[in-house]
Amino acid sequence: MAVITILGAGMMGSALALPLVDNGHEVRLVGTHLDGAIIERLRATGEHPGLKCALPPGVVAYGHDELATALGGAEAVALGVNSRGVDWAIEQLAPHAGAGWPVFLITKGLAERGDRLITFPAQVAAALGVEAAAVAGPCIAGELARRATTCVVLAGSHRPTLDRLAGLLRGPYYHVFPSLDVVGVEACAALKNAYAMGIAFALGEHERAGGAPGSVALHNQESACFAQAVLEMGLIAAALGGDGRSASGLPGVGDLDVTTNGGRTGRFGRLLGLGLPVAEAIERMEGATLECLDILATLRRALPAYAARGALDLAALPLLAHMQAVALDGAPVAVPFARFFGGERDAG
Amino acid sequence: MAVITILGAGMMGSALALPLVDNGHEVRLVGTHLDGAIIERLRATGEHPGLKCALPPGVVAYGHDELATALGGAEAVALGVNSRGVDWAIEQLAPHAGAGWPVFLITKGLAERGDRLITFPAQVAAALGVEAAAVAGPCIAGELARRATTCVVLAGSHRPTLDRLAGLLRGPYYHVFPSLDVVGVEACAALKNAYAMGIAFALGEHERAGGAPGSVALHNQESACFAQAVLEMGLIAAALGGDGRSASGLPGVGDLDVTTNGGRTGRFGRLLGLGLPVAEAIERMEGATLECLDILATLRRALPAYAARGALDLAALPLLAHMQAVALDGAPVAVPFARFFGGERDAG
Repeated sequence: MAVITILGAGMMGSALALPLVDNGHEVRLVGTHLDGAIIERLRATGEHPGLKCALPPGVVAYGHDELATALGGAEAVALGVNSRGVDWAIEQLAPHAGAGWPVFLITKGLAERGDRLITFPAQVAAALGVEAAAVAGPCIAGELARRATTCVVLAGSHRPTLDRLAGLLRGPYYHVFPSLDVVGVEACAALKNAYAMGIAFALGEHERAGGAPGSVALHNQESACFAQAVLEMGLIAAALGGDGRSASGLPGVGDLDVTTNGGRTGRFGRLLGLGLPVAEAIERMEGATLECLDILATLRRALPAYAARGALDLAALPLLAHMQAVALDGAPVAVPFARFFGGERDAG
Repeated sequence: MAVITILGAGMMGSALALPLVDNGHEVRLVGTHLDGAIIERLRATGEHPGLKCALPPGVVAYGHDELATALGGAEAVALGVNSRGVDWAIEQLAPHAGAGWPVFLITKGLAERGDRLITFPAQVAAALGVEAAAVAGPCIAGELARRATTCVVLAGSHRPTLDRLAGLLRGPYYHVFPSLDVVGVEACAALKNAYAMGIAFALGEHERAGGAPGSVALHNQESACFAQAVLEMGLIAAALGGDGRSASGLPGVGDLDVTTNGGRTGRFGRLLGLGLPVAEAIERMEGATLECLDILATLRRALPAYAARGALDLAALPLLAHMQAVALDGAPVAVPFARFFGGERDAG
């Protein structure tokens, strides 16, 4: 059995400890400098305050100043920091990376490099000189922490590393499907947060029009946006050099489905659909990290260069453009349905 | 403005009257022999008992014995019967089909012809010698009847007919996207009912394990099944000669999403997930039409011939096989996740 070190003791990083511990591994859960209260609580009571349940005794909690100790003899390192913490995590890990462990990320997002977007595994691999992979797909941390059945993709460019990591992770309730399409998988994983916001506009619009939850709602609109989101995710994934078909699998369709079943991005989209100004909607989220705003801004900066190179037709992304107008520019919600699917009058 | 005759006064057939009437057309809504009470109520009060709202005054209700009158001068005929009523509808329309109107179906399903499956539009076109098309995509009838935004695909093999029909239907809240992929679109439209049942197994399993609605549930499992359903729908659509990519659009992903947001197929899947014997689950549905059982049985009879011809690998359809085992053979629910996506250990 192996030692696995997880950096980042948020809900997803901590939930990942479950399948690892259940496979008999020694799991060292290292908090970041933002996770002090979580580590303290874990040490005092064994309970994770975010997951609202105890972690198994095999999970040992470490403070961020104990990272060197926690990495001793590690077989693999998992990164569970948030998307803004990747640079910090690379700095922390760099002095120890000579040990050769592979890194697998549950952090989702895309990094800007000149006029290109690169995946976090690519960034980590280049910065640390190690193999890097990423976990994506529909996974609510609270469910995994309670051992509910979960299917994920493990994406990486080095097949033997994928097989080795999948072997550490996979178990009776945690199903791991390897994929070599790192770019497509990671593009979808990052994009789904933005699109979940756009799908949730309908919730707010429905309430604003006087509809009550559970009454005849705007599910037709939500599902049309869902289908358009899958189309646009595939186009962007392909433009970035990935396989557009990942948008139809676990990292696209699957993760988008679970994300629209709840979560903060959907709550934020509902507030915008209600007609709240963006600043007020953000305030109402009480400091929750809104990855959707980061990814929308990143795409606005980066995608024109892809269009200029002929890799992408921006006119094929009307939902993305509308979400950017609403969330970044304060435009009112008015989803451009007639421009979906190649255009109502031009569709093949 | 045109005269449009709708045969079948159920919820979906009747809701379709809204965009047509709002476009200024004269809509004649003809009940089948099963719709007597609906037609009576519409004539007495203007209200549709299933939709629980009034239809606009421009919709005129006809009994099934008045079909000939209702077809007089029709520009197009819509079929809104249920999937078992297509043969009956063809018989009723046959004496009048010389008038040359095109037919568009909202009825979803697949018909068996020898060792092939054919779409209902193909069946209608062959039997009546008219152009036929079909509407598919995420559309809850009660929402359309209340003019909620709805996006649908109109699939047919004859482009001018598609454009003509789309022109009759399309309006500010009803967006119509033409598609020439009749087989792919109709395969997905038929299959989504079966897959919605499989996705809903998780609801029942969660309750059976003591979980309450709203608590940490089995959304990870549902979304994994959702992604696998999209994969399998695409494979079947392609085997039947359609475009597998329709599974990633409105007729696949979109309709599956709206169907899992409620509806009788999901309620039936939940009962099976709870562990009820099939017969008891059917009884609890109180006579509701369960298209999922029809399509599962149809696929069991028809797909082996496609596999024998090399058009389909049945091993790539583990969710379908499991749904058939549960719903047709009474097997207990135990979703074979490790065989999803090409197999947990074999995936590329």
